Amino acid sequence: MQLESFVARSLGRWRSMRSGHSLAFQQFEDVRSSVLIESIEPQDPLVLNLLKDCTIRDAKPVHPFRMEWNAESDWEPDDPSAITAGSCILVPIPTDNRNGILLRSVGYAEAEQAASNYTFLEDDTFILSTQYGQSIAEERIWFVSENVRCRSSVLRTSAGSGILQTSFASEIRRLDSFS
Amino acid sequence: MQLESFVARSLGRWRSMRSGHSLAFQQFEDVRSSVLIESIEPQDPLVLNLLKDCTIRDAKPVHPFRMEWNAESDWEPDDPSAITAGSCILVPIPTDNRNGILLRSVGYAEAEQAASNYTFLEDDTFILSTQYGQSIAEERIWFVSENVRCRSSVLRTSAGSGILQTSFASEIRRLDSFS
Repeated sequence: MQLESFVARSLGRWRSMRSGHSLAFQQFEDVRSSVLIESIEPQDPLVLNLLKDCTIRDAKPVHPFRMEWNAESDWEPDDPSAITAGSCILVPIPTDNRNGILLRSVGYAEAEQAASNYTFLEDDTFILSTQYGQSIAEERIWFVSENVRCRSSVLRTSAGSGILQTSFASEIRRLDSFS
Repeated sequence: MQLESFVARSLGRWRSMRSGHSLAFQQFEDVRSSVLIESIEPQDPLVLNLLKDCTIRDAKPVHPFRMEWNAESDWEPDDPSAITAGSCILVPIPTDNRNGILLRSVGYAEAEQAASNYTFLEDDTFILSTQYGQSIAEERIWFVSENVRCRSSVLRTSAGSGILQTSFASEIRRLDSFS
């Protein structure tokens, strides 16, 4: 199953360079961060809690995982509070070999629980689509080598087709054991 | 043919925000630029000149076009010479509905003539792959709405799988007539 392979390749520590483009204001935001992706048990209380709220019948989670990030924004380089950190539980529920639902304890565009639809393109690009209260996010993740993956996002208003912002991250696997 | 539709949607003036990520040095480069994409005649001397050097038998160019850009880098904001401009002739030669060759008068990664292979994914993402003397570039272009397109690139060493840099551009169609 493509999902299993995708999660397996994603596990580990990553050094991320991420650029956000605010289209209306033509502003850039560049952020370096450290990302940790690790497997968690399907029986973990955090997973069971997410599933409890899920309305999908006979939901069969596969390879739940946890993401943790520590980011430093360039917007206020002298402000220690600009260092942001967070974590999130992600629970994939495949519906077939290429498609499924991804439950998240914290959304990407808005800080609420979210259920995304995912699909894999023929070249293994992973596409996630999430409807939030005020916006729709589309994320794409693709591996360009074993140790480098790219991630883009587009955030649009849920009312219309207005594009609010885009982002792109280059993620390099950290092979040192100290990070 | 997907290529014809892709070129037709790309014509016009675009305002581009582009972020380059240098992976080895963990450096960002943010550039705003103006991009003009316009059709040119298949009989244009610049097109015929590119075809002359092309080794493809019975090459049938479709929808040749010209790109022109004016970029301003953030690396040396006080240096007027950091404003870079250029133009390029592009000549698509489809081999079937989804694949083909794209000849370019100026390469993306290196300033030499180049022939790229292109393919369209099932969601219409346009993927270009170009072998240069010292590097291999993969570019992806996809429309997120009629007036916004995204463009990513990954540059790797031709010798191995080392990734040199990545980039991402958000391009918004300019609807004003003054630009």
